[in-house]
Amino acid sequence: MIKIIVDCFGGDHSPQANIDGALSALEQISDIHLILTGDEAVIWEYLDGKSYDPARLEVVHAPQVITCDDKPTDAIRLKRDSSMMKAIMMLRDRDDIAGMVSIGSTGALVTGALVRLGRLRGVIRPTFCPILPTMKGGIVGICDSGANVEVDSAMLRQFAIMASLYLENVYEVASPRTALLNVGVEPGKGDAIRQEAYGLLKETQCLNFVGNMESRDLLGGNYDVVVCDGFSGNVLTKTTEGTALEMLKLLKGKIYSRFRYKIGALLMKQMFTEIKDFMNYQNYGGSVLLGTSKVVVKGHGSAKSVSVAKCIEQAYKMELSGLGPKIEAELVKYEHYEE
Amino acid sequence: MIKIIVDCFGGDHSPQANIDGALSALEQISDIHLILTGDEAVIWEYLDGKSYDPARLEVVHAPQVITCDDKPTDAIRLKRDSSMMKAIMMLRDRDDIAGMVSIGSTGALVTGALVRLGRLRGVIRPTFCPILPTMKGGIVGICDSGANVEVDSAMLRQFAIMASLYLENVYEVASPRTALLNVGVEPGKGDAIRQEAYGLLKETQCLNFVGNMESRDLLGGNYDVVVCDGFSGNVLTKTTEGTALEMLKLLKGKIYSRFRYKIGALLMKQMFTEIKDFMNYQNYGGSVLLGTSKVVVKGHGSAKSVSVAKCIEQAYKMELSGLGPKIEAELVKYEHYEE
Repeated sequence: MIKIIVDCFGGDHSPQANIDGALSALEQISDIHLILTGDEAVIWEYLDGKSYDPARLEVVHAPQVITCDDKPTDAIRLKRDSSMMKAIMMLRDRDDIAGMVSIGSTGALVTGALVRLGRLRGVIRPTFCPILPTMKGGIVGICDSGANVEVDSAMLRQFAIMASLYLENVYEVASPRTALLNVGVEPGKGDAIRQEAYGLLKETQCLNFVGNMESRDLLGGNYDVVVCDGFSGNVLTKTTEGTALEMLKLLKGKIYSRFRYKIGALLMKQMFTEIKDFMNYQNYGGSVLLGTSKVVVKGHGSAKSVSVAKCIEQAYKMELSGLGPKIEAELVKYEHYEE
Repeated sequence: MIKIIVDCFGGDHSPQANIDGALSALEQISDIHLILTGDEAVIWEYLDGKSYDPARLEVVHAPQVITCDDKPTDAIRLKRDSSMMKAIMMLRDRDDIAGMVSIGSTGALVTGALVRLGRLRGVIRPTFCPILPTMKGGIVGICDSGANVEVDSAMLRQFAIMASLYLENVYEVASPRTALLNVGVEPGKGDAIRQEAYGLLKETQCLNFVGNMESRDLLGGNYDVVVCDGFSGNVLTKTTEGTALEMLKLLKGKIYSRFRYKIGALLMKQMFTEIKDFMNYQNYGGSVLLGTSKVVVKGHGSAKSVSVAKCIEQAYKMELSGLGPKIEAELVKYEHYEE
């Protein structure tokens, strides 16, 4: 039985979507045990009349809620009774719990997990890795995407190893094509850190390193893992999201501007639904922390129950596949790891 | 009379588009004098039979061509007789020439200009500033976008001042809303350089500094200038371009997949043309170097004659508005400038 905590408060549709997602995961995965954190009165009331296996569901009371307005460092210090911080502390203290899923504030979750949870053996700094859909129907992991705004080449190599193992073990991508985000594809590009990292990545046996890549090629489907510092990774992820959303908005605005466009759009309705589905974060689970001692999955703020269930499945697969021990076994082979 | 050099070799449609663009600029702007560099036999042959004012057009022979396969540092050393390097050297050596326009390799142009041209008084490092259209019909300048992958806070302040003056003088944007690219909007975000830069930008009188911005908001129309290091600026610019292109490709692929979508697309034909026009680089001129002693404009590699003419007009406006002297007058007011 794999035990996972679900932080029920946080996200646009919480607590309903979070609880429904948990129930749906319980139904889909037979050897999972879930612990819901949050205001227990609210949770029990919502559970009332729903059908689920009570032997595999616990509720732990945590009345406070961390919002996106809370400063992360304050949140983790002052809101110890929040559904998120309670989850992090239980995850740290209880050996029987494998991981947690939260839909709440990314800043608070990443900061809280980095500060309160230990690291896997050998990890210099844990890293935050979201997944984006590519235009060829696959996915690409971006690592780091904001946990570490300052990095060195040894950290970049570790990000590559951890993300590559993650794609392989959780998404069944065979020898993930791993590239270094840079300002040009030629070797020698970028600053000293990038140039050093290029050398390290090239000599790392377990990686399928394919060289530098430019951000304009992110969605083309030629890469499975993009390695970068947290600052440019954050820019990469948010620019992709922002541009796609702005383009859809532009299309929508135009369609409503003329009658014949509305007719055209009606004929293409299914197509637009497909595109929206394809770009919909609900269908791709969450972003994960790699390198923490326990599994942490962060769902998209707008996650509905389907997406929450996918995040729980992700956490389950990370634990089931032994991703943590595999990361430790690999990192120890290279210099620069933390003792 | 303002004298500008047009590098006629370089770009997907060169030399035709470059020469046609030059002729069209000559027609539109009465006090401009153009010097075309490149293989003179080819240029004269193409000019044959065309109507233009011969007193305002010169041709300077430069038989070599720099391609995108040439390593920038080699190109500027070994291809001194290329249309681009000849232009840069003439710009450096002749006081009567104000600027140049090139459609060729960005790397070679930026490297060549930085190495061979002097800087304006007070400039620590010149910067590369492209312009993107926003979804509200305006534009936004991204500065730096690749010339300086490593920066400090004083450089970021200079980028902000130069780009702000550029938007004001060339695009008539009154007190440009200037933001610092960061991983979150709150003050205190980002690494030490970003935190220091925030303080410097805030205290800079001539700027309309509106705080940190996240990359997902680039196209929303709330910013006129985005200040960043060249690495993340490069990621920002190329990700926006890449995502928009991939989405159009996705739409196109879908439309061709079913008959009813084709009918729908026919009804929306004008709308798609409008969107393509809106996103078309041809309509937005080129990227500029700010901080070099003379004006340098880089057109998009796929520039057609309309776009080349716009680049020439940009160079003309930069000189006419006295942008260079205005930058010098402003930078001298702050510490950290180069003597």
